[in-house]
Amino acid sequence: MKDKIVVALGGNALGKTPREQLELVKNTAKPIVDLIQHGHEVILAHGNGPQVGMINLAMSTASNSEAGTPEMPFPECGAMSQGYIGFHLQNAIREELLNRSMNVPVATVVTQVVVDKDDPAFQNPTKPIGAFYSEEEAKILQASKGYTMVEDAGRGWRRVVASPKPIDVAEKDTVSTLVNNGHVVITVGGGGIPVVREGNSLIGVPAVIDKDFASEKIAEILDADYLIILTAVEQVAINFGKENEEWLANLTTEQAAKYCDEGHFAPGSMLPKVQAAMAFAKSKPGRKALITSLEKAEEGIEGKTGTLITF
Amino acid sequence: MKDKIVVALGGNALGKTPREQLELVKNTAKPIVDLIQHGHEVILAHGNGPQVGMINLAMSTASNSEAGTPEMPFPECGAMSQGYIGFHLQNAIREELLNRSMNVPVATVVTQVVVDKDDPAFQNPTKPIGAFYSEEEAKILQASKGYTMVEDAGRGWRRVVASPKPIDVAEKDTVSTLVNNGHVVITVGGGGIPVVREGNSLIGVPAVIDKDFASEKIAEILDADYLIILTAVEQVAINFGKENEEWLANLTTEQAAKYCDEGHFAPGSMLPKVQAAMAFAKSKPGRKALITSLEKAEEGIEGKTGTLITF
Repeated sequence: MKDKIVVALGGNALGKTPREQLELVKNTAKPIVDLIQHGHEVILAHGNGPQVGMINLAMSTASNSEAGTPEMPFPECGAMSQGYIGFHLQNAIREELLNRSMNVPVATVVTQVVVDKDDPAFQNPTKPIGAFYSEEEAKILQASKGYTMVEDAGRGWRRVVASPKPIDVAEKDTVSTLVNNGHVVITVGGGGIPVVREGNSLIGVPAVIDKDFASEKIAEILDADYLIILTAVEQVAINFGKENEEWLANLTTEQAAKYCDEGHFAPGSMLPKVQAAMAFAKSKPGRKALITSLEKAEEGIEGKTGTLITF
Repeated sequence: MKDKIVVALGGNALGKTPREQLELVKNTAKPIVDLIQHGHEVILAHGNGPQVGMINLAMSTASNSEAGTPEMPFPECGAMSQGYIGFHLQNAIREELLNRSMNVPVATVVTQVVVDKDDPAFQNPTKPIGAFYSEEEAKILQASKGYTMVEDAGRGWRRVVASPKPIDVAEKDTVSTLVNNGHVVITVGGGGIPVVREGNSLIGVPAVIDKDFASEKIAEILDADYLIILTAVEQVAINFGKENEEWLANLTTEQAAKYCDEGHFAPGSMLPKVQAAMAFAKSKPGRKALITSLEKAEEGIEGKTGTLITF
């Protein structure tokens, strides 16, 4: 049976340098193309934490140096990361498809994700980005640029930005048109370029949208059958790392909510994945979410492994 | 009459900093949306000289600094520039459309342009990119990285890369699908990310593809009616800046070839524009190319100004 599947790739699917990324995307492409070869429609989302961090750090370092390049706002750094990652990822998938004599177009769409400017997250920025500063430098940045700076685990001061919830995908018509015409689409890279609506404008805002939530949003919009969140582990566990650790093959949204409340899942790690999976499974009857590792995606779809989250 | 029009935007349509770009794209959007409002299908290409230069300089400065970010190859910098420019440009066009109550989707496609690895240009790199170096530093870069370094008009040494001819657009099916479904598409940004074919792979190469030639290529592929090259002047001139200067309203490809041979047009400036226009006008009966300024695009289409190049 042919399913429409949104696959959210974790940080381990990419890499920290362009050279590393060029290698890693080759492995990433294989299970993705397995899904395509089995007749599924695949839409790809991916994180960009290390990549946008690197770009932001480079741009701010250079703007404070003799090079004197202009200061680059954070959303623009996100847009750059989509171009950079999309370039490598689309080529790796394209090559793997051609190696299997499959002529399927692959496209990266520069994608903006709309957030609510009144999202409470803006009152409490938590996501550290960019370079480390001394306390003195941090105070200057706070005063001169209005950044929120926090002390980061004894390693120095860093800027933090908000992590608001995605409410819409600005380029949804583009993604939808391409998917309906048989393209493999790479979208909402890094959770999307964060923007707010102001009248007819979309305005970039310094924020980090969780890529699992953005993937869930585009999966809903595209009326996908499956949301697959790929991460470093094969299954979701409760009591992770403890004696009574238990790996889960199936999880209802009700059970999942209970485990979330009980604190089984690490914030910023497994928690947003489980929450995104729950939201998707609850959004419409029949929708399923799967959390597994990149290597096990195909077996997961076949019901052999992974954690399947259903309503 | 509804025409399919590829519009190539010059450097003056964008800007050197993100702030400048955000302002300039608003002006750029107006004549583009005029064309769309008059029923034309519009595909947008743009240069990226100052932008990719800035990104490349920032990335290399940061990688040689304490920040220690990884070295970023030139094609990857080009991919970043497409995300960065597309983000601003698509939003300005989207907003101008909505201000006129037009609900037309606008999309930026990360686009690779294929060049021939045996293109003679690779034997004679001419396009300076990135920072200035001392002669000593230049020799080290030449030896350690295999860069071609040249002395640049007394200002220091710079890396030069080749400017090969575009032979194909890797994402042509994506662009075509979107255009056929009524999307305004931003593509071949900066002349496209330069790649060569190796078996089933596309490999990024350090090169600068002229955005006028890349625009001509995608216009041919899409079977466009018009190629409009927007630049700083309203018309093409012969004997430019001399007493017998003459502005041209019409130009046959034969006349244009003669003027090119006579050296009327500056290399790297008006010459590639005239050459791209000639190539398009010659590629199929009925195809027309127009060279004019951003502000005069609409009047140019109406035949009131600009230089129209026909077979």
